[in-house]
Amino acid sequence: MFNIALFGAGRIGQVHAVNINNHPETNLYSVIDPYLEGAQKLVDSYQAKIQSVEEAMADPNVHGVCIGSATDTHANLIELAAINGKAIFCEKPIDLELSRVRDCLAVVEKHNVPMLVGFNRRYDPQFRQLKEQLGAGTIGKAESLLITSRDPSPPPAEYSQVSGGMFRDMTVHDLDMARFIIGEDPVSITAHGSCMVDPAIGEAGDIDTAVLVLQFPSGVMATIVNSRRSGYGYDQRLELHGEKGLLQAGNMKENLVQHWGDVGCTSAKPQPFFLERYQDAYIAEWQHFADVLAGRCKPECSGVDGEFALVLAEAALESMKSGKTVIL
Amino acid sequence: MFNIALFGAGRIGQVHAVNINNHPETNLYSVIDPYLEGAQKLVDSYQAKIQSVEEAMADPNVHGVCIGSATDTHANLIELAAINGKAIFCEKPIDLELSRVRDCLAVVEKHNVPMLVGFNRRYDPQFRQLKEQLGAGTIGKAESLLITSRDPSPPPAEYSQVSGGMFRDMTVHDLDMARFIIGEDPVSITAHGSCMVDPAIGEAGDIDTAVLVLQFPSGVMATIVNSRRSGYGYDQRLELHGEKGLLQAGNMKENLVQHWGDVGCTSAKPQPFFLERYQDAYIAEWQHFADVLAGRCKPECSGVDGEFALVLAEAALESMKSGKTVIL
Amino acid sequence: MFNIALFGAGRIGQVHAVNINNHPETNLYSVIDPYLEGAQKLVDSYQAKIQSVEEAMADPNVHGVCIGSATDTHANLIELAAINGKAIFCEKPIDLELSRVRDCLAVVEKHNVPMLVGFNRRYDPQFRQLKEQLGAGTIGKAESLLITSRDPSPPPAEYSQVSGGMFRDMTVHDLDMARFIIGEDPVSITAHGSCMVDPAIGEAGDIDTAVLVLQFPSGVMATIVNSRRSGYGYDQRLELHGEKGLLQAGNMKENLVQHWGDVGCTSAKPQPFFLERYQDAYIAEWQHFADVLAGRCKPECSGVDGEFALVLAEAALESMKSGKTVIL
Amino acid sequence: MFNIALFGAGRIGQVHAVNINNHPETNLYSVIDPYLEGAQKLVDSYQAKIQSVEEAMADPNVHGVCIGSATDTHANLIELAAINGKAIFCEKPIDLELSRVRDCLAVVEKHNVPMLVGFNRRYDPQFRQLKEQLGAGTIGKAESLLITSRDPSPPPAEYSQVSGGMFRDMTVHDLDMARFIIGEDPVSITAHGSCMVDPAIGEAGDIDTAVLVLQFPSGVMATIVNSRRSGYGYDQRLELHGEKGLLQAGNMKENLVQHWGDVGCTSAKPQPFFLERYQDAYIAEWQHFADVLAGRCKPECSGVDGEFALVLAEAALESMKSGKTVIL
Repeated sequence: MFNIALFGAGRIGQVHAVNINNHPETNLYSVIDPYLEGAQKLVDSYQAKIQSVEEAMADPNVHGVCIGSATDTHANLIELAAINGKAIFCEKPIDLELSRVRDCLAVVEKHNVPMLVGFNRRYDPQFRQLKEQLGAGTIGKAESLLITSRDPSPPPAEYSQVSGGMFRDMTVHDLDMARFIIGEDPVSITAHGSCMVDPAIGEAGDIDTAVLVLQFPSGVMATIVNSRRSGYGYDQRLELHGEKGLLQAGNMKENLVQHWGDVGCTSAKPQPFFLERYQDAYIAEWQHFADVLAGRCKPECSGVDGEFALVLAEAALESMKSGKTVIL
Repeated sequence: MFNIALFGAGRIGQVHAVNINNHPETNLYSVIDPYLEGAQKLVDSYQAKIQSVEEAMADPNVHGVCIGSATDTHANLIELAAINGKAIFCEKPIDLELSRVRDCLAVVEKHNVPMLVGFNRRYDPQFRQLKEQLGAGTIGKAESLLITSRDPSPPPAEYSQVSGGMFRDMTVHDLDMARFIIGEDPVSITAHGSCMVDPAIGEAGDIDTAVLVLQFPSGVMATIVNSRRSGYGYDQRLELHGEKGLLQAGNMKENLVQHWGDVGCTSAKPQPFFLERYQDAYIAEWQHFADVLAGRCKPECSGVDGEFALVLAEAALESMKSGKTVIL
Repeated sequence: MFNIALFGAGRIGQVHAVNINNHPETNLYSVIDPYLEGAQKLVDSYQAKIQSVEEAMADPNVHGVCIGSATDTHANLIELAAINGKAIFCEKPIDLELSRVRDCLAVVEKHNVPMLVGFNRRYDPQFRQLKEQLGAGTIGKAESLLITSRDPSPPPAEYSQVSGGMFRDMTVHDLDMARFIIGEDPVSITAHGSCMVDPAIGEAGDIDTAVLVLQFPSGVMATIVNSRRSGYGYDQRLELHGEKGLLQAGNMKENLVQHWGDVGCTSAKPQPFFLERYQDAYIAEWQHFADVLAGRCKPECSGVDGEFALVLAEAALESMKSGKTVIL
Repeated sequence: MFNIALFGAGRIGQVHAVNINNHPETNLYSVIDPYLEGAQKLVDSYQAKIQSVEEAMADPNVHGVCIGSATDTHANLIELAAINGKAIFCEKPIDLELSRVRDCLAVVEKHNVPMLVGFNRRYDPQFRQLKEQLGAGTIGKAESLLITSRDPSPPPAEYSQVSGGMFRDMTVHDLDMARFIIGEDPVSITAHGSCMVDPAIGEAGDIDTAVLVLQFPSGVMATIVNSRRSGYGYDQRLELHGEKGLLQAGNMKENLVQHWGDVGCTSAKPQPFFLERYQDAYIAEWQHFADVLAGRCKPECSGVDGEFALVLAEAALESMKSGKTVIL
């Protein structure tokens, strides 16, 4: 049984707490959060204890850390965990500054601890299924990928400062997904953005609607279509075209009931947002981290993957500003 | 070019007029209808002429008749056409009385003219496709058939007298479809009905909701689910289960556009009623009659088929009244 | 925390063990199974202990029993649990003999313990959703229900003796579902069966293919279409027609990826069988039993529901043999 | 009745011949084609006559021309028809050279004859439906458009010379569609291409796979995804995202039968190619031209639309070569 110290008792921390508890090989050992009330709720539900950052890092009973705290604490916590020899699971991003990411990864490498970066979508059973069918030759060689990714509603305009902007905050998942599916590193990126949803986002210097095109060494092109608004749930789809056919991974609906009535045939909306849509992905992700803890495999999504996604997000920003394709 | 005399310039007559005109081998020669205004409209559109029943039947230029007039005129017109050596296309039913049907068919047989009974659904490309896939072995041996057939809205209660009741008027199509798909004659029928839609229909001695079960010599069972009301268009579906799988022929929607919005994912209703839903079936049916006229084939749906469907409708009525399975 | 004694460490027992363990209010306390190896596996995984029937029934720490053992042990275990004041969750059926069921229920009533009968499909989120939409008036008053229920492949012919035949073993779920959805007790039942899948089943006096029609006091008709074979996964669908429209609960597919290739557009099969298809139903069912244990509600599916389903199965048998509708 | 001279008796000419014949206001008067055998077939089927270019243009009985001959004859025939006062329907493109297009349009304008350019997809009922729903406010203000357009298989590499390359030949339809749906003229275009299907196409200096992004004055972005190969029929879809939801116009399948079997649930491929997929569009297009002939409306798709699509295709070529967004 591996004891896990959970950093962050918020929305995503609660998801991980359930999965840590339900997994037969992991135990929610402690919760660390400056907001004590939230931490207390979790420790009560799962017979865990509250610790400080220092206590958790120094505690030899802690085998692994699960970092789901605020973005600006990630890099520090990663470094402390590495220094203290803990296996690391960290939500994306490592940091919003590329230089800080690189310094942090150097510390992890020096202390040689396993680290898994939480690009949750890589574990989504639908997207995995699509990737497996590609691998099995169902559509032959890949030719073009389309990623549709729309949030249900925009964050407040102020969030643009905290999040690093749409590309670093939201598109970064799709950039990682493109690399994951194609299995290559892109050679160029072109980005287009506009502000269609909330003018305040534009005034804050950010965008809310985007199209990006990536080209890969094999000639494959990946297109990413993004919006901060959907109005019909969380829109998360993949479409991969190959020499022998097409694979589509569609939205997961809230239920499968169809109603035929006087306005036509209506079925449910897609799942509302990431906690519901990627519920199974979070379970599979944690299963993978348990496999890493048990030494059964290496992390499938490493610090370098986290770094690469950020490099792409920054190149996208440069392309959008210059109106030119950026060669990587 | 075969000259066709069209009996009946109403809704269904107009459908046939277009198809007669568009077919390269047939010509709308004359229209016969006591309602002269309707007849005049058709002859104007297609450079045809108005005739009386007697003129049309006596005219040696008429090669075939298309009977789409009121139900109680069918048997007489069929007999006149047979006596005058015309090829016959007649909308179902031949008559509502079984004895009259049999007398009429005897006349047709005596004069040895080809006759096609218009069970339009047999020519529907979707149902044909399902039957072809059964024939090609896609699902192996058939095991059970489900026919869902619902009209958009009930006829006035008075219509029950004219139509012979729901089984003779509406279910008769589904009874024919069951024979057509399974390719056997049923050995028993059990029928259940209720009046759920319009109490006046019940007071008139008829039903508006029904379930029927037919058993075939091979053990195959066919279930027919009927209603006089759908509220979401014309509901016309087949589902055939076999030893190796399932075939479904679903509803044809008015268009293929999907709308994802705050009430979910909505697509169009099925086609509103038979004129739209079976538009392609009517064209294919006429193509088949042109093939019969040209001697390229025998009628696929003969007077005997029309008779058999009526026999089944009457047995269904007997079963519903007695609460017993009727052995055929 | 409620301590649960689990009777039966087989396929279904393992499902309940996971759900008992993952639920925050229940604890897998002990496992009782004559096959000790299976029991040991479960107690090892969940820090439970092995008990004998007598030990478990006498143990004051046991608050509730979960009975997932062989069918012929159910009634005895229920009576013992009732006598010992335990809350009871029991997989269907209570017994295959109606008189034994009634005796057993009398004991439960005398000792006044809560009992939940495990008709798992009542907790399926899809079917619940359909029932809720009916309740919310989406389609107005219900008019006809269609239940399609096909197992992936037939059991060995010998099983017919153990199971009490197809109606008591398999159709019983659909008979309960019809009552659950319509919310009335049927007034008549008509059943038709044939042996299409395996002749040995017919020789054993059982059937493998069936169609049943139930009529309810309100005039609603329910049709059940059954087969012991599907060849394309577990086929579990509901279709409810009402005065204002239609509700359909379709199959849950193994995944949502669509492949467009040279044979057309292909998506995954439905879930293979009940353990996968009703995974969420089992979780919701256990949640309901936890609510019963905590006194938050009464059992939604009582012994009387178990008894009624068996009454219907026996009436179906009588109808099939007599070729007549059986009035209830 | 308007008499039509049809130029070109090939594949597309035959489509128009049927539609001219079936329309109650138009008559196939003559066919002009240097390949006399093809012309003869058509005149035999429809009681038309063979004419030379000169005869048809000089014949006062000819009210309109339908130009479906080889691309390099279009501009000349248009000019001759304009000079002779005939109403003009011409398949796209007017010419592959922009200067030739402009000269030709000047002649049409000078002689003030109505001209309809045959961008057939504008008349597709599915795409019309989507545009109407946009107009009706179903999704509020448009935000981004996705056009997926894939041919079933690539043309021979030599064709690149004749066709003017993929953008001028194939993408030109999608460029026109983007303008049609959004109802604005784009302000910039960015194009990416690669050769994934047939190396010989690359050697001939052309591409077979492309992604294009257009930006419109309102901020709307349109993405076009193209391939010369699909392997699963003709892939023709639109997806329009707006402030209140999403509209999708999917592929039209060859039939609606679904097969559930051991490889999953399979339905038919999309229609094989444009003649089948756009069959209804060609009929509606001809209906529109009949409306133009009868003076009931102006051409919805004029010479200027034909010119604009070519301007966009050339800008796309420039963008792909330079790696920069081209401002229009």
